[in-house]
Amino acid sequence: MKLVIGNKAYSSWSLRGWLACKQSGIPFDEVVVPLYDADWDRRREGAEFAPSSGKVPILWDGDDTVVWDSLAIIEYLADKVGRDRFWPESDSARAMARSMAAEMHSSFTALRRKHPMNCRQQFAATIPDNDVLSELARIMELWAQARARFGGEGAYLFGDFSAADIMYAPVVTRIFTYQLPIARFAGPYLDAVVQHPWMQEWIAGAQEEDWVLEQFEQPAA
Amino acid sequence: MKLVIGNKAYSSWSLRGWLACKQSGIPFDEVVVPLYDADWDRRREGAEFAPSSGKVPILWDGDDTVVWDSLAIIEYLADKVGRDRFWPESDSARAMARSMAAEMHSSFTALRRKHPMNCRQQFAATIPDNDVLSELARIMELWAQARARFGGEGAYLFGDFSAADIMYAPVVTRIFTYQLPIARFAGPYLDAVVQHPWMQEWIAGAQEEDWVLEQFEQPAA
Repeated sequence: MKLVIGNKAYSSWSLRGWLACKQSGIPFDEVVVPLYDADWDRRREGAEFAPSSGKVPILWDGDDTVVWDSLAIIEYLADKVGRDRFWPESDSARAMARSMAAEMHSSFTALRRKHPMNCRQQFAATIPDNDVLSELARIMELWAQARARFGGEGAYLFGDFSAADIMYAPVVTRIFTYQLPIARFAGPYLDAVVQHPWMQEWIAGAQEEDWVLEQFEQPAA
Repeated sequence: MKLVIGNKAYSSWSLRGWLACKQSGIPFDEVVVPLYDADWDRRREGAEFAPSSGKVPILWDGDDTVVWDSLAIIEYLADKVGRDRFWPESDSARAMARSMAAEMHSSFTALRRKHPMNCRQQFAATIPDNDVLSELARIMELWAQARARFGGEGAYLFGDFSAADIMYAPVVTRIFTYQLPIARFAGPYLDAVVQHPWMQEWIAGAQEEDWVLEQFEQPAA
């Protein structure tokens, strides 16, 4: 398998696709493509990007099979290695995990737009605007319910590290980067995610990157 | 199972969840809740809506299991009745179908905002703005590729009616409602979707509804 991703520092959707590949246990080649640099418009027209119309991540599994969205990558890999590696086993937990993953996929646009991921930086804390605060409150509500109902003894949303944690991992890094306000219960969860070996590996990769894009290197407007 | 949906005339995400329940073959009760009427703010605070924070569709499977997003409903039901009822069997077709479904789930925001679903109306054709035209071109590209690579003898994107058709069904109704420009190949596909017995049942239901919301009853701005 080959996974095409953007800058590790900035590309939140790439992080999700990459964690999904790690979670699958299948070895994969990683192709990092700097987004938004001078060659980006030319590069995204290449054959490798064609199926996605220029977005990352893109998973190639052989020459004919391509998946170009992070949630689709999770499901595709779950088909390949078994659903239980990605999703909770019980119907009620899996129903919630799938709903939370889908809500992350379609929502929280203010948080995503105003606090773009930059997993190698920490900015001074500022008060987020009301749209962001309201989205953060919703995220805290979802995390709290998942932990209370299904967290058990595990450190993650549904106990073991799952697709739900993969989908919310870039939110975790944003909370650190922008020092966003959180509910008290969430502290240990945030630490567990950011200390996960795969997250540490990703963040180390981001710190080694040379590319600096000004629009991601400042506190939220 | 019980599915909570919005007005059939207007609620495009509800249509997807409802088609998913039909596709599962499992009997379900349907609870239609008018969106945006005088009681809406009060009603969405009720226990039935709590997990979703007031959005539809919501699938309840017993008292403890709830799924509140249309794509999550598809996956939850596919777990329940078997993946092949929802997704193509071959890896390469399923990779594309899942990617297309996810792209619909996260994208095409101009089309969705400027041409809200109203499946019981047809407005005079106008020229959509450039954002919408560009999204329609992308949709035509995706449909053309799916049909060419995987459509076979079937009438739908991947041959038989699948989750990909479910996700794009509200786009099909919008094309009729607003007489949006399409690629020539797409005509028979559009007809096949709108003539599907479940779509006919949904549209008939929409025509029987009394609720009229002015913001959905006019051509695109």
